[in-house]
This record gives sequence, structure tokens and C-alpha cells, in this order.
Amino acid sequence: MKTLVIISHPNILESSSQQFLIKAIPHHFDVTVHHLENEYPDWNINVAKEQKLLSEHDRIIFQFPFYWYSSPALLKHWQDMVYTEDFAFHARGKALRGKEFGLVLSVGINEAEYQAGGREMFSISELTRPFQATAEKLGMTYLKPFSIFQFGYMTDEQRFQLAIHYQQVLTREKDNSLEAKEKWIMEQLTNMDKASLSTDDKIVLENAVESLKNNRHTIDELKLILEQMW
Amino acid sequence: MKTLVIISHPNILESSSQQFLIKAIPHHFDVTVHHLENEYPDWNINVAKEQKLLSEHDRIIFQFPFYWYSSPALLKHWQDMVYTEDFAFHARGKALRGKEFGLVLSVGINEAEYQAGGREMFSISELTRPFQATAEKLGMTYLKPFSIFQFGYMTDEQRFQLAIHYQQVLTREKDNSLEAKEKWIMEQLTNMDKASLSTDDKIVLENAVESLKNNRHTIDELKLILEQMW
Repeated sequence: MKTLVIISHPNILESSSQQFLIKAIPHHFDVTVHHLENEYPDWNINVAKEQKLLSEHDRIIFQFPFYWYSSPALLKHWQDMVYTEDFAFHARGKALRGKEFGLVLSVGINEAEYQAGGREMFSISELTRPFQATAEKLGMTYLKPFSIFQFGYMTDEQRFQLAIHYQQVLTREKDNSLEAKEKWIMEQLTNMDKASLSTDDKIVLENAVESLKNNRHTIDELKLILEQMW
Repeated sequence: MKTLVIISHPNILESSSQQFLIKAIPHHFDVTVHHLENEYPDWNINVAKEQKLLSEHDRIIFQFPFYWYSSPALLKHWQDMVYTEDFAFHARGKALRGKEFGLVLSVGINEAEYQAGGREMFSISELTRPFQATAEKLGMTYLKPFSIFQFGYMTDEQRFQLAIHYQQVLTREKDNSLEAKEKWIMEQLTNMDKASLSTDDKIVLENAVESLKNNRHTIDELKLILEQMW
């Protein structure tokens, strides 16, 4: 699976959350990062190039800071220009049909405020309806929005977990089963660049992989027993 | 009450609905029409000028075609630039507090599709949550969105009613009582430029005003009687 991360952020170098996310993408991931403000400082979008880029990927991610409950304007401009009738919808163009679409939002306000009675009144799911409706219109599968609330206040431990979660948003198959999660973790452990690890760490890693495999074996056996009982 | 209509439309001269709406605004209305693409062809927004314009009006209307369930990008850019912390929110700036905010949307698809089970899935109220949340954040009173569905298919009679409804959206006080509606109609009839009317039409008009006044008198008397009965 090839993933395209389309970032819209007017001051990306000054954004600690965006810098963190970009650095969290391992080199061996099949992920293309595409920053619109960097690519199009004059807002002159190359429509053919963008459409080709979309066609070459299976999962499309819009990643941006939440400005007035939506994206920065360049990303809206990009949508208005790139999602043409010939390319993306109606009878003639269905280039995006069957692809997956997801949002990665950085949000400056506490998560608890995004609900009825909270200061922001509506949930992220409600506020991002235009993106959901667009994805549906283009025949794309809409993924759960991934929102990063108040990155600036996160502890190192929280940021570490954020990085893992973000990597899954980019590359894990849309399947919420324990088995799919295990599979993803096994892949990451197997694909890791182990050259920089000490001998001790390598042994820890090999044990972790071994123990995951054993757990899966045990779970499968228990499932089989359960199925025979019913 | 002074009303500011901020229009965002990339090809306004080719839009029959936008041309119709602009022509439907009577000259004696205290309405400022402000077309962003015309004012800022290079997207270089004069923030101070826009903030002054907002401060001078009581009701702010965003008028635009619904592109991918939101506004054209220039209007989003305008919001990101103009709604600064100093001017519009947080402790320091509250310039928009107490004003009214409304949307006038032109929509290419049938109204019935904008609901659960319809092809567009969500209602206009749901899809415009970002505008509602923004208005609330800035302390503005949010008016009912006014959506014009499939202008191209409207009959002359429907367009005539649309013009009257639109005029009310721009200038009628936010009060849904019969009395407020009457008051608005009386004002329009009184302020009309009657020079171009024939003598016959003038008599019809005077009779209409007289009959509205008499109706109001009768209604007020009936109300008084009802109040005494309780």
C-alpha cells in the first residue's frame, strides 16, 4: 500500500508538531510527503501533476492544523482545482474510487471542548463533515480522523505513543482486529534497521518477535477450541 | 441596521444566480456588497481595511457557491487573515461580538439530497458547522443559513419569491413574528421608488398599505380581547 500525505501548513518550519510527525515516518515506509505551501508558493497548482500523484497512491491523507474548524485555504484551493469532473467524479472520471482517505489534524484546544456543552460546541467528526462528504462523493473509504490535541503540552511518553499511532494511520490496513495490529507490529519489527542496535537490544527484539508469534499461536488454538464448543 | 455582503465566487460574471441576487438588492437598502475575487485578484488581503469594513456593519453575510461542501478558497483565506486574535477573539479583541452572521449559499444539487439517506448524506446545517462554530467563537449571533438550490431550474415566480426572501435575509430584523414580517413589508412599500409606477399601480399600492394597516389594527384588537379573557 502506497500512502500520500498532503500537508497544508503556511509555516511548517515553525510548527513543532508537523516537524515531529514528518520525522516520525520511517524511511522504509512507502509514504510520499507532499507539502503544498512549499510546492506552490504562488498558489499556482499543477493540476495534471497532482492528479497523477493521487492516482499513484492507495491511501490519501490530508494533514493540517485546524484553522477556523477547517483546513488552511491552500488545501481548499487544491481540492477545488484538482477534483475535476473528468478526473474524480460523475460518469467520466472515477480515478479516486476505492482509495482510502484520512485526516491528520493538529488542534490547539483541549479534546474535551469538542462536544456539546464544550467551548467548541461540536465534535471533530461533526466539524469535518465537508471532508467526509467529499470522500464519499469521490467513492473513497473514509478513515477515522486522527486528531492531535495540544501537542505542545504532551510528555515524551505521549509523543512516543503518538508517533507509533501516526505510523499506523499512515500504513496499517483498515482492520481493527487484534490480528491486524499484531501483523503491523511484526512487520515494523522485521523491517527495522537493526544495524544501529547493540547486541543486547537485538536479543530483546528477537525475543519480542518470538513471544508475539507464540501468543498468536496460543490465541489461535483457544479460538479453535471455542469454535468446537459452540 | 447596516449589512455587509461578502461574496466569494471565482467567476461571478458567469454566475446567473449571483447576478440575480446582486440585482435584487434595492438601492435604498443599507447594504454593502463586497466581492473578494474582484477586490483581491492576487489574494493579497488588506487586513486593516477588511477589519474596518466589518466594524462598520451590524450584519455580516457570506455569500458563495457551495464548493465541496464549503466556500471557495479565497473566503477561507480571508477568514484566516482577517479574524486575528487582536481584532476578533480572546481577551483583547471583541470587535465582532454582538453582530449577526449569516450564510447565503447557492447549491447545484436538489435540496432533498441533503439529508440522511440522500446522495449528499448530510444537511446544510451539518455541513456548515465550521461557519457556525466560528460565528459562536467570535460572539456573533448565527442566523439560519439561506440556501438557494438549483437556481437554474427555478420558474420566474420562484425567482420573484427568492428575491423577496433574499431581501429579508439582508435587512429584516431577526424576529420571526408576523408583526416583524409586516413591519418589514410596510417599510419596503413605503421606501419604494414610486416615480416609475403608473397611477393605477400607485392606487393598488396605497390600498395594499392601507389594508395591511387595517389588518394590524384588527389583529391588535383581537389580541386585546383575548388577553382580557384569560
